[in-house]
Amino acid sequence: MSSNRLRSMAVNSMGTIGRTLMIFLLLAMMFEGEVCGYRSKQWRRSFSKTDMKYKPRKPLQIEANETWVWPMPAEWTSGEGTLIVDPKLELVVQGSLSESDVMEEAFERYCGHIFVHQTIMNLRLPSDVPILQRLVINVISDSQTLQLGTDESYTLTIPASDKASDVYLEASNIYGALRGLETFSQLCRFNFETKFVQIPRTPWSIRDKPRFQFRGLLIDTSRHYLPLETIKKVIDSMAYAKLNVLHWHIVDTQSFPLEIPSYPGLWEGSYTKTERYTMEDAANIVEYARRRGINVMPELDTPGHAASWGVGYTQLWPTPDCQQPLDVSSKFTFEVIGGILADFRKVFPFDLMHLGGDEVDTTCWNETEHIHHWLKEKDLTPHDAYATFVLEVQKTARKLGWAPVNWEEPFTEFGDLLSPDTVVHEWYSSNLVPEIVNKGYRCIVSNQDVWYLDHLDVEWELFYLNEPLTDLNSREQQELVIGGEVCMWGETADPGDIEATIWPRAAAAAERLWSPKYLANSTDRALPRLQRFRCLLHERGVGAAPVKNYYAREGPEEPGSCYDQ
Amino acid sequence: MSSNRLRSMAVNSMGTIGRTLMIFLLLAMMFEGEVCGYRSKQWRRSFSKTDMKYKPRKPLQIEANETWVWPMPAEWTSGEGTLIVDPKLELVVQGSLSESDVMEEAFERYCGHIFVHQTIMNLRLPSDVPILQRLVINVISDSQTLQLGTDESYTLTIPASDKASDVYLEASNIYGALRGLETFSQLCRFNFETKFVQIPRTPWSIRDKPRFQFRGLLIDTSRHYLPLETIKKVIDSMAYAKLNVLHWHIVDTQSFPLEIPSYPGLWEGSYTKTERYTMEDAANIVEYARRRGINVMPELDTPGHAASWGVGYTQLWPTPDCQQPLDVSSKFTFEVIGGILADFRKVFPFDLMHLGGDEVDTTCWNETEHIHHWLKEKDLTPHDAYATFVLEVQKTARKLGWAPVNWEEPFTEFGDLLSPDTVVHEWYSSNLVPEIVNKGYRCIVSNQDVWYLDHLDVEWELFYLNEPLTDLNSREQQELVIGGEVCMWGETADPGDIEATIWPRAAAAAERLWSPKYLANSTDRALPRLQRFRCLLHERGVGAAPVKNYYAREGPEEPGSCYDQ
Repeated sequence: MSSNRLRSMAVNSMGTIGRTLMIFLLLAMMFEGEVCGYRSKQWRRSFSKTDMKYKPRKPLQIEANETWVWPMPAEWTSGEGTLIVDPKLELVVQGSLSESDVMEEAFERYCGHIFVHQTIMNLRLPSDVPILQRLVINVISDSQTLQLGTDESYTLTIPASDKASDVYLEASNIYGALRGLETFSQLCRFNFETKFVQIPRTPWSIRDKPRFQFRGLLIDTSRHYLPLETIKKVIDSMAYAKLNVLHWHIVDTQSFPLEIPSYPGLWEGSYTKTERYTMEDAANIVEYARRRGINVMPELDTPGHAASWGVGYTQLWPTPDCQQPLDVSSKFTFEVIGGILADFRKVFPFDLMHLGGDEVDTTCWNETEHIHHWLKEKDLTPHDAYATFVLEVQKTARKLGWAPVNWEEPFTEFGDLLSPDTVVHEWYSSNLVPEIVNKGYRCIVSNQDVWYLDHLDVEWELFYLNEPLTDLNSREQQELVIGGEVCMWGETADPGDIEATIWPRAAAAAERLWSPKYLANSTDRALPRLQRFRCLLHERGVGAAPVKNYYAREGPEEPGSCYDQ
Repeated sequence: MSSNRLRSMAVNSMGTIGRTLMIFLLLAMMFEGEVCGYRSKQWRRSFSKTDMKYKPRKPLQIEANETWVWPMPAEWTSGEGTLIVDPKLELVVQGSLSESDVMEEAFERYCGHIFVHQTIMNLRLPSDVPILQRLVINVISDSQTLQLGTDESYTLTIPASDKASDVYLEASNIYGALRGLETFSQLCRFNFETKFVQIPRTPWSIRDKPRFQFRGLLIDTSRHYLPLETIKKVIDSMAYAKLNVLHWHIVDTQSFPLEIPSYPGLWEGSYTKTERYTMEDAANIVEYARRRGINVMPELDTPGHAASWGVGYTQLWPTPDCQQPLDVSSKFTFEVIGGILADFRKVFPFDLMHLGGDEVDTTCWNETEHIHHWLKEKDLTPHDAYATFVLEVQKTARKLGWAPVNWEEPFTEFGDLLSPDTVVHEWYSSNLVPEIVNKGYRCIVSNQDVWYLDHLDVEWELFYLNEPLTDLNSREQQELVIGGEVCMWGETADPGDIEATIWPRAAAAAERLWSPKYLANSTDRALPRLQRFRCLLHERGVGAAPVKNYYAREGPEEPGSCYDQ
């Protein structure tokens, strides 16, 4: 499931040249003398000349007939009115909710987003205009359980301008209500002329629910450590796009940042003694995510992608020179995996546990004498041993109450042996999804040609148009595709560039996964809305890159409006 | 004062090629067939091969004998002990401070930074080890005035491990105490083995004060709108590096985002009707900055860099085709400037008002009939009129109680005519500072060859080694250099890349401006400390780019520790 960074860089560099034009560079070299050298002491004052030619224009109207909400709700009607929202907007929670701290906290958060330009101190509300004064949330179930398939639907009713002063939000549970709150916040806009937050096009009636139950984003804390603050910011931003699963690729070859109480030597594989997470940190992340309606799916990738495990326990390596896949012949290997999974179970309540199983090169096993010997004794080929390994780990995970998730290789290599509740995570092969569901397995779609965020040359349109149900005709087949996930592999992503690499492209996939297919099929219609969503991310402190750049995460090429870049 | 973006891009592109090696690219083209084309559907699975070769190692010890505090304090002594910090650390404010909400708020903030990995719930403090339980802050003056030259000194005393349980922080005023709190927070480190926050190398005795009174960072909200959240995050991060002036280049040719109550048509020059700031927003920014010990210096750049003004008032343009410099012949021009400055005065309390005055090309004036006529009538050359314009604006600002700041051109063009309290902002000419101070003017140093953050090919070492007092021998001369400023011009910087463009390089300048010269003169000694500061920024949610990359704001090139990139 990992990515071809070098190739990506090569493509990237050539493209950059193509764009800034080789001729220009050569001319620049001729005139500047030392373009390839260190730098000139004196910069030409050419920018002001560009400024001189710039002709400012009247401000663009960014209001339009389109619904700005991202992702697009399933159903809605709207009118032609406008309502003012009282900055002292009150939250009223109805229904069977006994403890509503998640709702109250969320309401506070969203008030922070909605009323960013407004101070209650200076407030003089007009007396002759209807004002929205209360947000009434009716939550039917008291359950706080967040799992795969938890109902996220909601209805949002915003009255006509001359009617009642309450907005109604109804949902089966708090998580649906959180989605509705996000939608509500996106309908609210500060009007710089009236200086009030207004909702245009009232009345609104929205009935919304997700198309897929699994809408994921992968983060990778092994290739680069991501501090808690970064992970929390990513979770915040996921909620803005209604993504609902944080796939936490915790450990890999390069580093093992997480504390494992059962095997305290394991985080000796961290980069440094501070680039680590305690188990309390992990629990903290899970709870932070839950309060935003987001599940955390941890990953323990074996038997490959695991060299860092052996820093603390060298016996997990076949030999010090041949560090992975982990030693299949050793009981200790499976004891450690059992210990990790048991520790994981205490902090990761999600139904699904990702067990990796990808990109296993068994050369090491064959070349290591004691493993080679063991294989012979057991009459196993290395390929058999790979299957045995993965199945053994699946069994351990299932005993702990998880449904196992594996990258596609275990399916393509020994698909018939997998536990029937396995979720196969498609990433590499073309047209694999129909094969997976035809064998009755559930499936998560992450095809790397368009849903790997570290592939910087994949533009948002391809993220948007990637249809998980391609070539699946029957309802049974379609229902086995539980959703999709965009993957932010960490080889070149750290806290300095991760937000700009994820956004806005992850949002394109998020609409594909949330909105009805017929509403999410035109990139032309989506573009201005995605640009608006990008500006919304900026307003909320998320460093989303320009939408229209060819290469992801590059800064804007020239001055201009956020809505136009 | 603006920058040469195109050239920077050219240098950038060529460098990238140099680095990834042209030969590799050509080979890649041969093998892949379509490197310059759109993209291949199938990515090679080469990354896992790189992973396979990766040999993880024991975690690096990032403790060391160096003082990690950035910027380096003026004087300190430390020992060999260790203290545990109680997560229930208590704030005690002594001295004459009647209202200490700024202190209490700051303490809360810093507790958030210090105890990020720790929950009080799980706390079991050891009974046999001394614990730091109280932070006693003694603030001598009750004044909340923050101005140029406000005393920022403090002393911080952390006891030996076997002594008292209090840490003492003394300062003349709250702003010095804020600096001390930052230093204290940087000494605290979470120990992942003991799971306590500890202070190593106790006892500590620190006496600290800044070398320069003006330590600035420019942001540019005209080339790209920066939402309030982005500006606030920049202010937060400035406080971490003990920078103390946010130079807000509010308007320019491209857009006029700020509300001006006296001339409400002016923000018709904003990019869109939402990329705007109300006057309340500006006041909010100023107060937010003050609570972190940071002054906001606004800029109103005239007569050039002002085309956006005319979107709302076309009569400010010489002609619609010739939009700047603003019409020098019209009384209305100066009425508008007077109105803006009067409005500014209500929200910007800082002593200094930046009046721009740079890069004025008077061609427009000569070519516009009515201005040409007016010049003749007044017997003025265009150059005289430029001087008249700047001096008139200086006069208006001085009447409002400001000392004027101008970019260097008014000094180089008509230096003898400037008001003696003018602060000249050096940016372009080589070796201008001695000339400026020899004429008795105060000076801010921003030489663009090394302190312009949008110059992406200027590495941190050059930021670090730029000495503002070069060639100034007498104390009188030196004292006229009030400090320096790094400039984040916004042509290619928006909320998606601004943090990675500012940091870590601005921190290099920040140490130059804060720490005694003899402590801040070795890039070898600074490097590991700057890397540590970069990781601290990450922990606090600031997206700082790698320190060691040649080009600023590029992501990391490969997996690795934050402390090593």
